[in-house]
Order: sequence, then C-alpha cells, then structure tokens
Amino acid sequence: MARTPPEEDRRPGEFELISRYFAPLASKVPGALGLGDDAALLTPLPGTELVLTTDVLIESVHFLRDDPPDTIARKALRVNLSDLAAKGAQPAGYLLVLALAPWAGTEWIERFAYGLGADQNRYGIGLLGGDTAATPGPLSVAITAIGTVPAGAMLKRSGAKPGDIVFVSGTIGDAGAGLDILRGRAAGGETVRSALIARYRLPEPRLSLGRALRGRASAALDVSDGLLGDLGHIAEVSGVAIVVEASCLPLSTELVRFYGESMETRSTAATAGDDYEIAFTAPASSAAEIEAAAAESGTPVTAIGRVEAGQGVRLLDAAGVQIPVRRAGYTHF
Amino acid sequence: MARTPPEEDRRPGEFELISRYFAPLASKVPGALGLGDDAALLTPLPGTELVLTTDVLIESVHFLRDDPPDTIARKALRVNLSDLAAKGAQPAGYLLVLALAPWAGTEWIERFAYGLGADQNRYGIGLLGGDTAATPGPLSVAITAIGTVPAGAMLKRSGAKPGDIVFVSGTIGDAGAGLDILRGRAAGGETVRSALIARYRLPEPRLSLGRALRGRASAALDVSDGLLGDLGHIAEVSGVAIVVEASCLPLSTELVRFYGESMETRSTAATAGDDYEIAFTAPASSAAEIEAAAAESGTPVTAIGRVEAGQGVRLLDAAGVQIPVRRAGYTHF
Repeated sequence: MARTPPEEDRRPGEFELISRYFAPLASKVPGALGLGDDAALLTPLPGTELVLTTDVLIESVHFLRDDPPDTIARKALRVNLSDLAAKGAQPAGYLLVLALAPWAGTEWIERFAYGLGADQNRYGIGLLGGDTAATPGPLSVAITAIGTVPAGAMLKRSGAKPGDIVFVSGTIGDAGAGLDILRGRAAGGETVRSALIARYRLPEPRLSLGRALRGRASAALDVSDGLLGDLGHIAEVSGVAIVVEASCLPLSTELVRFYGESMETRSTAATAGDDYEIAFTAPASSAAEIEAAAAESGTPVTAIGRVEAGQGVRLLDAAGVQIPVRRAGYTHF
Repeated sequence: MARTPPEEDRRPGEFELISRYFAPLASKVPGALGLGDDAALLTPLPGTELVLTTDVLIESVHFLRDDPPDTIARKALRVNLSDLAAKGAQPAGYLLVLALAPWAGTEWIERFAYGLGADQNRYGIGLLGGDTAATPGPLSVAITAIGTVPAGAMLKRSGAKPGDIVFVSGTIGDAGAGLDILRGRAAGGETVRSALIARYRLPEPRLSLGRALRGRASAALDVSDGLLGDLGHIAEVSGVAIVVEASCLPLSTELVRFYGESMETRSTAATAGDDYEIAFTAPASSAAEIEAAAAESGTPVTAIGRVEAGQGVRLLDAAGVQIPVRRAGYTHF
C-alpha cells in the first residue's frame, strides 16, 4: 500500500494501527488469530490452572507523559507479570487495552510497541488480543496477563502461620527513591540517581523465584504498594500478625547513598511503592528449601521477620522497639 | 466499622471501595479469592478451550457522563459478552479495570456496581478480579471477558466459502438510530425514541444463538462497527466476497417509523454501529440447521445475502444494482 510519509505526525486509523504495530506482536501466538478475530483462543495444558490478573497505568497517575514510551509499555506489562510471579505462575500471554490521548502520535506508538516487543521476547510471551480507542484525555494502558500453574500449586496470600519466617526478594525502596528524584529531590551522584530512576521505570518481575517457591512458600504476594502495607494483606487474609526487623531490610548501596543509612531510611524503604519484589512466608524448618529456591532462580532473598499469632504488621528496631510509620503503604488511588 | 454518613459525596478509598462494592460481585466465584489476592484462579474443565476478549468504554467516546451508571456497567459487560457469543463461547467470568474520574462519587459507583450485579445474575457469571484507579480525565471501563468452548468448536471469522448464505440475528440499525436521537435528531414518537435509545444503551448479547451455531456456521462475528464493515472482516479473513441484499435486511418497526422506509434507511442501518447482533455464514445446504439453531435459541435470524468468489462487500438493491455507501462502518477510534 502506497502511503505518503506524513510531514506532521498524523496517526493512522485503528485498523492500520493494529496491523502495522500490534499484529506483529501476536504473530507467534496461534490463538491470537493475528488479532483478526473478535476474541483469542487459549488451550490450557491438561493438569494446569490459569492465573489471571489485570492492572492499569494512567498518565500523570502512574507515569509521566515525558517518560520513554518503551518503558511505559514495559512497565505496564511487567507490573502484571509481577503479579503472576508472586503466584508462582508461568506467563502465557496478555491482552492490551490502549486508550490513546491526542498527544500520542505515530512515533510514540511505534516506540511503545517496540517496548512491548522487547519484553515479549525477554519473557517468552505474546499478545493475545486487545482494544485500542481514542480518548480526549490522559493516555492509559490496561493489561490483563494470563499465566499457568500446575493444578493446586498457585501461591496465595492466605497460608502464613505463626512461627513462619518472612522473606523478601531483592532490595526494597529503590523505586520509591527513583520517584522522589523524578519529583525533584536532589541528592546522591548522577550514577546513583540513574540507577534508582531505572528501578522506578522498569521493575523486574521475579518469575523464576515465584516458580521456585511453589510448594515451598506458605503465602506470597508482590510488593507494589509498600512492603509493610502489602505484608498487612498477608496478615489479614492469613489471620496472623507479622513482625519485621528494620535492621534486616535489604537496601541497595544506591539507596543508602541517596538517603543515608538511618532508621528513617529503613522506614521510608519499607513503605515506598513500586518495588515489585516478592514478599513471602515459609515454615522455619524450610530455610534450606528457600535457600535452594533463591539459588535455583538466581534471585537474592532475605529473611526480614517472623509470623506471630495476632494481627497487623509491626516494624521493630534493633532493640525490639516498635518504629512508628506514617503510612503503611503507598496508594495510587 | 463506624462511619459517619458523609454530607458531601466523598469517595471511599480503594480498599473500602473494593470491599464494599466489588467484593460482593466476586463472592460466588471461588477462583476470585474474594478479590483479596494478586490474581484470580481459573480451572478449565478437561476438553475445553478458553476464549478471551477485551473492550474498553470511554466517557464522551463510547458513553456520556449523564448516562445511567448501571447501563454503562451493563453495556461494558455486554459488549464483551457479545464477542464471546459470536465465538460460540459460554461466559465464565470477567476482570474489570475501572478508571474513576473525579466527578464519579459514591452514588455513581454504587449504581455502577448494581448494574454489574444485575447482569452477572442474568448471565450467570461473576467478577474474577480487577483494578481500580483514580484518573483526572474521562472515566473509563475496560473489561476482559473469559469464556469456554468445547475444544475445536470456537466460531471464527475465517471459514466462509463461496456458495454460503449470509445471516444476521435480530434487527440492525436500531442502536445507531438511538445514538442519532441522543445527539438531538427529532423524529418518531416518544415510544419509538425510547425503544431505539434502549437498543443503544443496552445491547443484548446473543449467547444462546452463538452456542447453537457451533458446528453449523462456517464463520461468525459480532456486529459492533456496522454490518457491512464487519462483514468485510469475514470477507477479508476468509478470502471471499460478500453480497448483501438491501431489501432482505431485518429492520425493526421502530427504525422504519423513525427514519421512514427507503433505500437510504437500509443503507444507514447497514453501516450504523453498536448493533451487537451476530452476522454469520453457513453452507446453503444447512438452511434447516440454521433454522433449528434460531428456534433452539429463541433468536430471530434472517438470510441477507451470499458468499461469492472474489473480495469485498457489496450492498445491492432489489434490481441487483450496487448501492454506494459513504462508509462501510462506524468507528469509535
């Protein structure tokens, strides 16, 4: 089809948009039917169950208009993959709803689709279907991700028991510091700031660790709204209390250089959003199993506290005194 | 929990919103885990495949702020169920992304959730999971619906063959006329106008018909962007031409009273959006089977044309002369 290269950045129509940028993302997925049907077809393997999750990112709420389009796409995908990771699921595919604001032209869409493609390859998944629409106002990206687990193996928030140990993967607070920097807080050097911003823009879903925790963790979730607040969900659903030792929290070198080493830093890190690490509990007797899961998946895991009878979440200092926190978590609402 | 009844219509926080209005919609769905987990769990029956579809409705693009909140909810659900219907699928559940604009207060949310609940009961499905977020800009509702079909039985857009008959369910053009009325066009009486507006606001997914067409229709889709345009998708994906007889198009009494009986009315009806009927093809030899499917499902079905070798879609008058149409379909993009 002959097409005059536009002088201005005019946006193609919906069908052209789909065929040019999104159909290629579905090309290796037989059930996506080339995005040329009303719906996608998924054939689950016998003995598997499906894990479904959906999350939306909205301009000016979850990302900024100036953010690189490929990282917006990748973050939208990864926050959903992070939910699958925390449930021990293997990603199978995703559906995309893209509400395009007037300011998003062809180049933006091209770079957005490029980001999706890069992460599809990274995580071995494809686009199953979706919907694009024009919106007068803020751009938004809603993704529904589908994963599979062996029947009965999904990790849940329920299941934590008094006596269990509490763990978290990676380091926490980095993404929150990245957002602080984007909002204008100046500290640390250039390298430190770039590293923290990168953690905010591009979370790393802990898929291998999640799969390795199947049958080993008693409860698990992904940390998206602040470690303490999210552990509160495990405590509530499991009907237990959770105690976290501030001195055990895994902090990155960058975070410590940015905020300084203090209890204040630890409390900030424990309540900052967008970590996308896995927090989980496991029986004290299974310490070796957890170590094996961390090693198998190449993901650092740190014991940070314990499960007790009772309710709620407490953060303790080295002397065992409770540290008051202003808010348990971060909310995008 | 004691809560002072607010004088102004303050909106509760995300967690309260979920527990008060949305968790009840998930209460009968075991895999939804009371919306208290990162993801939902779905256990497909052996021998079934899953059909997945997603559609978004955006304020001022797909609905108006003043529309009744319960019909916005129901339409958002039904346009997705209509996709499942056209694929012959049995709905299993859905995920909801609700981006709430500042103007949508507690009463709006309550009525929205009420509408979802009413249609859940009607269609025997439940809420599997979702995400709610605040947006500064237009309110939007994105739903991902999941259905099941016996393995291999999904109806597709491909499969139409020269010699097949083309059918459509119900009547067409009514919803388009309803939108015309909402945009200020005055004609017909009060009763006629209410009926047409109702068709625009509340489509009726043809789920029973879709299931009855499994193994009988050669190709099928739901008519959402205009009959001719949508038949064009069957023609393209199946590699055939489709000819539609304008005089055979099923029009409602209300539509004829609103626009008058003319070829212009028929061409308008054939290109109007939001019908949510099923258009499908079937071998000429299976006329009795199609009649049986219509009877079993209690859904009127009309033969409107035929499949030929070639490409594209043509609308013919009673003398067999092609009627020029301004546009093949309606686009929300």
